[in-house]
Amino acid sequence: MRDITPLVAPCSIAVIGASTDPAKSGGILFKNLLDGVFAGPLYPINPRAETVMDIKAYPTIAEVPDAVDLVFIVVPRQYVKEALSQCAASGAKAACIITAGFSEIGDGGEEELRKIARDGNILVAGPNTVGMVNAEIGMMGSFVSFPEWKSGGVSLFAQSGLFAGVYLRQVMCAESQRLGVGKSIAVGNKLDVDEIDFLAYAATDPGTEVMGFYLESMRDPRGFLEVAAKVRDKKPIVVLKVGRTSAGAKASASHTGSLATDDALLDAGLNQYGLVRAGDEADFIGLLKAFSMLAPPGGRRVGVLTTSGALGVMAVDQLSDAGMEIAEFTPATMERLQSALPDWQPAGNPYDFWVALDVMGNRDGHAVPLDAAMADDNTDMVLALLLASPNSDFPKVGQVFTALRRKHPKKPLVLVIHGSAERDRWLREIEGCGLPVYESSSAAVRVMGALAFYAEHTNTDR
Amino acid sequence: MRDITPLVAPCSIAVIGASTDPAKSGGILFKNLLDGVFAGPLYPINPRAETVMDIKAYPTIAEVPDAVDLVFIVVPRQYVKEALSQCAASGAKAACIITAGFSEIGDGGEEELRKIARDGNILVAGPNTVGMVNAEIGMMGSFVSFPEWKSGGVSLFAQSGLFAGVYLRQVMCAESQRLGVGKSIAVGNKLDVDEIDFLAYAATDPGTEVMGFYLESMRDPRGFLEVAAKVRDKKPIVVLKVGRTSAGAKASASHTGSLATDDALLDAGLNQYGLVRAGDEADFIGLLKAFSMLAPPGGRRVGVLTTSGALGVMAVDQLSDAGMEIAEFTPATMERLQSALPDWQPAGNPYDFWVALDVMGNRDGHAVPLDAAMADDNTDMVLALLLASPNSDFPKVGQVFTALRRKHPKKPLVLVIHGSAERDRWLREIEGCGLPVYESSSAAVRVMGALAFYAEHTNTDR
Repeated sequence: MRDITPLVAPCSIAVIGASTDPAKSGGILFKNLLDGVFAGPLYPINPRAETVMDIKAYPTIAEVPDAVDLVFIVVPRQYVKEALSQCAASGAKAACIITAGFSEIGDGGEEELRKIARDGNILVAGPNTVGMVNAEIGMMGSFVSFPEWKSGGVSLFAQSGLFAGVYLRQVMCAESQRLGVGKSIAVGNKLDVDEIDFLAYAATDPGTEVMGFYLESMRDPRGFLEVAAKVRDKKPIVVLKVGRTSAGAKASASHTGSLATDDALLDAGLNQYGLVRAGDEADFIGLLKAFSMLAPPGGRRVGVLTTSGALGVMAVDQLSDAGMEIAEFTPATMERLQSALPDWQPAGNPYDFWVALDVMGNRDGHAVPLDAAMADDNTDMVLALLLASPNSDFPKVGQVFTALRRKHPKKPLVLVIHGSAERDRWLREIEGCGLPVYESSSAAVRVMGALAFYAEHTNTDR
Repeated sequence: MRDITPLVAPCSIAVIGASTDPAKSGGILFKNLLDGVFAGPLYPINPRAETVMDIKAYPTIAEVPDAVDLVFIVVPRQYVKEALSQCAASGAKAACIITAGFSEIGDGGEEELRKIARDGNILVAGPNTVGMVNAEIGMMGSFVSFPEWKSGGVSLFAQSGLFAGVYLRQVMCAESQRLGVGKSIAVGNKLDVDEIDFLAYAATDPGTEVMGFYLESMRDPRGFLEVAAKVRDKKPIVVLKVGRTSAGAKASASHTGSLATDDALLDAGLNQYGLVRAGDEADFIGLLKAFSMLAPPGGRRVGVLTTSGALGVMAVDQLSDAGMEIAEFTPATMERLQSALPDWQPAGNPYDFWVALDVMGNRDGHAVPLDAAMADDNTDMVLALLLASPNSDFPKVGQVFTALRRKHPKKPLVLVIHGSAERDRWLREIEGCGLPVYESSSAAVRVMGALAFYAEHTNTDR
């Protein structure tokens, strides 16, 4: 297994094609690296400029006086081969080729690039990619810029370019519930460095707690699964593998030049090895959020607490579909739950907050029943379907959820919050609590099923 | 079939329990009616106040000098029976009982209420509901308030209370893509007026173009389907029926006192009769958005245009799963599509915008390929997966989509827009274009499948 550290966590970086024009890809990428406050040396390579954004430029990589770990290549496609050869000759350890127009359009040029990489013993990401981010070391090496980035324990690997750029930009610009991503490595056409290299890296990387893979092809599915099986007990792995159908595989061939994988076999393998498969981009992020925030549950018994009876009924249907059980609360829990209700309203599962808010006030009407359900021995997970409305609002909502999280750190609590103006404030307050919030009951139930699946397929507590 | 016009579109309204306290349900509801600028007379009934919010109050409904169509009842549950009797005695034609605590908690009181309603020949909505909105006549009869409401051709019927209140509040407070809802009738426990009454009303109501039903039980599924079958050619019908599973049916019994329906039979019936079934709350709104904005497609051949190859591949997988075809563009279309690309990048389906933006600029790089696909004779629907990023942004985005919509009014165009700051602006600009936007490729593909299903099951053009 190769060590891809120089690619993912380089000590020094050069950019061939660093442009003085901040509107060009080579300019944006260089500016992002500057703004990201990358700690190591940064060398713009540009034969037509003395400096790029006030940093001394070099006409070629050969003229850089010091050793360079990683070189970003942002030049027109006819110059890519030469640029990569120069990187190899100069002793650079890794290159990330941003430029598009290779195997995704049926161009054989990629074979030549691969040969240069092998002969020169240089790690290559790309071509046809948005770039790579390692927020831990300030490497914002992307031609999409990220005004905000929340670093964290999630490591992403994407066989694609823009998806990892713009969709992540959306995730990072959300007003709340941004995903904490330490590393996002987009390898575009995946000419060289692949998912198994990254898996091996992330397995021992102390910053990686959860991994997400967006894949259009797999070099060696069995090999990937076997390495993953050794890792996933400590670091959950979410895989979004597309090109599942024959039409999708055809589309993938013209996107990243990918060869088809036997999807039924892969699906069975992922299942057997305890890797979670995401259905689409939103599901991918939703799953990563759950795995990065919650401990694996002890079983499939779910307590449902809801401010809307309708959402409760819907969720129970969906939980049943997902093979979950509706928990039977212990008598002690039932007593606590009943204490928040008038006699005429019997407590149950689902538990309806609505009357409790009237009886206990909005804060305790939420806090007491939630605490009771989280403490319940017959309950493995709690789903709270909340309505943030003037009728249910209270100040410092986040405190209630922080307290629940602290008191019951091992019991997953998954939230859905509907509402309007109050909803935005609730989401912002809950942002810091480490509890995932979903857009719909089905998205929430989906991740609960995935958490249970993961717990059943792993051997150790995290 | 009864005429429920006095309930849904009353000429005069009274509120028994109209409170002078604007924080109580009876105060909020009365204030919402006042603020909604209901055009007809409005009578607060309150024995302890001369006026309620500056409107002359009456101690009982009997003392109101004029005929009253609809009475909202917002009093503690022990007084509901008496209030309903007084309504019947006074000759009111309809009542909406907001108060909760009846069959959903196993209380037999509802049978008495039903008897009063029948003997007094009075239509009843509720008990246990948030209320009813008819935006066309300014009747905001809900104890959840709506700072904004977008009226339109969608009519909703909900066997629930809060769901129709707070979830709709969220929909209405969205910064973009609010659903145009003319009527939202929440009947809570559904003591009397039911889905068949509403269906018959909406069938001939000129304001209703699309119907949405949230149901926990169905009085007569076959009867509903038979009436619906006569309506759905002109007015698409979306049904969110919960309590599908045995656990869900049990939860529903304690939410609205519902009896279980044979779900497999119902599912088959909905399919046979061309009614679309929603999976959850987000899907329900997403489907209603599509049906209220788009014409039924001529077939299942889809053109996919995407700024992110990854999203394109994902969408193609999902389209295949949904039984859709990837359209084979005509040679004329291919020529137009190719005109936006350099020679080295071949056009295809999916079509990748990315290089086109470089070649033609961001505006034409979007507009030209989209227009080509919309005009294509081999294409029944178009899915556009857009990235709103600094690299793809352009001013007056909405103009491009308004033009497409005007030029191709019969061809459904479904949008997914990812991005960040630019995304919010794109969404706002596209809001007025009459094109639905979805949060993920799977949500978009889902509605395209539903549009095709609907087109295949209906006999007339809308």
